[in-house]
Amino acid sequence: MTPSPRIGLDIGGTKIEGIALDPAGDIVARALVPTVPGPTGVLQASGDIVARLIGESGLARAEFAGVGIGIPGQVDRATGTVRNAYNMGLSSLALGPELAAAIDLPVSVDNDVTAAAVGAASIMRLEGTVAYLNLGTGLAAGVTVDGAPVRGADGFAGEIGHLAVDPRMRPCPCGQRGCLETVASGSALKAHWPAGGEHPGRTLNAAVAAGDADAKQALEYLIDGAAQTIRVLGLTVNPGAFVVGGGLRLLGAPLFDGIRAQLAEWAAASEFIAALRFPERLQVLPEGSPAAAIGAAIAVNE
Amino acid sequence: MTPSPRIGLDIGGTKIEGIALDPAGDIVARALVPTVPGPTGVLQASGDIVARLIGESGLARAEFAGVGIGIPGQVDRATGTVRNAYNMGLSSLALGPELAAAIDLPVSVDNDVTAAAVGAASIMRLEGTVAYLNLGTGLAAGVTVDGAPVRGADGFAGEIGHLAVDPRMRPCPCGQRGCLETVASGSALKAHWPAGGEHPGRTLNAAVAAGDADAKQALEYLIDGAAQTIRVLGLTVNPGAFVVGGGLRLLGAPLFDGIRAQLAEWAAASEFIAALRFPERLQVLPEGSPAAAIGAAIAVNE
Ligand SMILES: [Zn+2]
Ligand SMILES: [Zn+2]
Repeated sequence: MTPSPRIGLDIGGTKIEGIALDPAGDIVARALVPTVPGPTGVLQASGDIVARLIGESGLARAEFAGVGIGIPGQVDRATGTVRNAYNMGLSSLALGPELAAAIDLPVSVDNDVTAAAVGAASIMRLEGTVAYLNLGTGLAAGVTVDGAPVRGADGFAGEIGHLAVDPRMRPCPCGQRGCLETVASGSALKAHWPAGGEHPGRTLNAAVAAGDADAKQALEYLIDGAAQTIRVLGLTVNPGAFVVGGGLRLLGAPLFDGIRAQLAEWAAASEFIAALRFPERLQVLPEGSPAAAIGAAIAVNE
Repeated sequence: MTPSPRIGLDIGGTKIEGIALDPAGDIVARALVPTVPGPTGVLQASGDIVARLIGESGLARAEFAGVGIGIPGQVDRATGTVRNAYNMGLSSLALGPELAAAIDLPVSVDNDVTAAAVGAASIMRLEGTVAYLNLGTGLAAGVTVDGAPVRGADGFAGEIGHLAVDPRMRPCPCGQRGCLETVASGSALKAHWPAGGEHPGRTLNAAVAAGDADAKQALEYLIDGAAQTIRVLGLTVNPGAFVVGGGLRLLGAPLFDGIRAQLAEWAAASEFIAALRFPERLQVLPEGSPAAAIGAAIAVNE
């Protein structure tokens, strides 16, 4: 499937996850380092993890086709520039060319959700039109067709989290009100359930089970927003599978049973919606799958 | 661009429009016949127009790569079957194989909006991600990437008209309430402005200019629903162009100035939305462009 070994990095706000793939597409090395914020820190940490992955792979640097990166923010793939990746202190960085010069390998850069969508389709062996939904701190979605991402015109594909739909009209940092991200995301969860503290996803299920009304309401918003996102994607590009990734998927059954129940309720009200088979097409990315790093590596040779 | 001549048919509720393309992709024959409802009528009329196009083209039947069809309803491209094309009396028809047997040429079948999306991108020479929005009796949208359609899993791609968003919750034939199609479509226009009669699009501008309050309200709904559709598509796949086709586009400036004004209002409220450049990316398919027939022909050799 892949002609040469390649490396993929998933650069996040707290950590950089890296993998090396052999020509068959199998993972031959894996590493994790903390993110050092700011341009110098991100470049240095990325170069270090690439060196480690090459060392562990047992292959020579020159054998690698290149390094693919998935990173939050607005990415211009043509120039390898990242903008507005504020949670790692980057307002604008020519990440592709600067890292390529430092490591002496070609570097391609993608938005992290686009990379995760490509990786998820590969990991789960899904052909055709697939939607990947990232329920993390934010809410975003990538679409792939036979494994290739729909990237859009300028790096905004997948920003469905900023579709304004919620009649409660809560303000969103994007300047609009009532965005899906204000309903279903980690940041929405914090806003709806302040008692959950810094990592509300970790304790939400227990609080709901204990009868906490605010926690229950926050979970219901998550369910509703995720189901709405699936419906929008379904009626726009009709995916044969909806894969949910991101940290909040670890809520497990309470979240996914709820989403399926909402989708089934809509299907019961409309034969048209029923024919789209949303509940059975919902899948969950397995825990620990380095989807964005794998997808970034796959995109290297494109 | 195209290796062999091919034929494209746009089968609608009232007429069948056909074109023949030469190997360079230029139109060498064009014909129009009335639709005869029912399976036998549709097959007979399709066969007749194919024979006429071949005759007018000056080429031999055997030189043609095949015939592509765009038709409303749910299309299974793999089997060439059309379902639920009620406005031409088809509940289920194996259109591809039956027509192929009758005309002795390969036949491929697509949903008409998918075909029009492919044709519009070709006619307007648009690369990258393009959304085609059909404002006709219904509301639907197709997405292409470098000219190739995103078809989705089972022929529902582009059914964005059945995204329920309208707080007025008007009932839709699909079983849901408040679908975009109940806001912005020819059928919505009739419902909102009954005084406009059977073809309200023909007299709407004059009625608005004369101060008819219902006509003005109906136009405002059209504008709002079309702008909402563009926003949904923009935040899902980030097209570099939004091309509007369908009969209602002939409303011209009152419609498009209104849509652009609504999109500009959203952009003024959010830098994020402004960066998506919706108003300047809105384009109108020129009058008389046989987009669905051309797109169906292009899809023959895929
Ligand atoms: Zn927002
Ligand atoms: Zn509907």
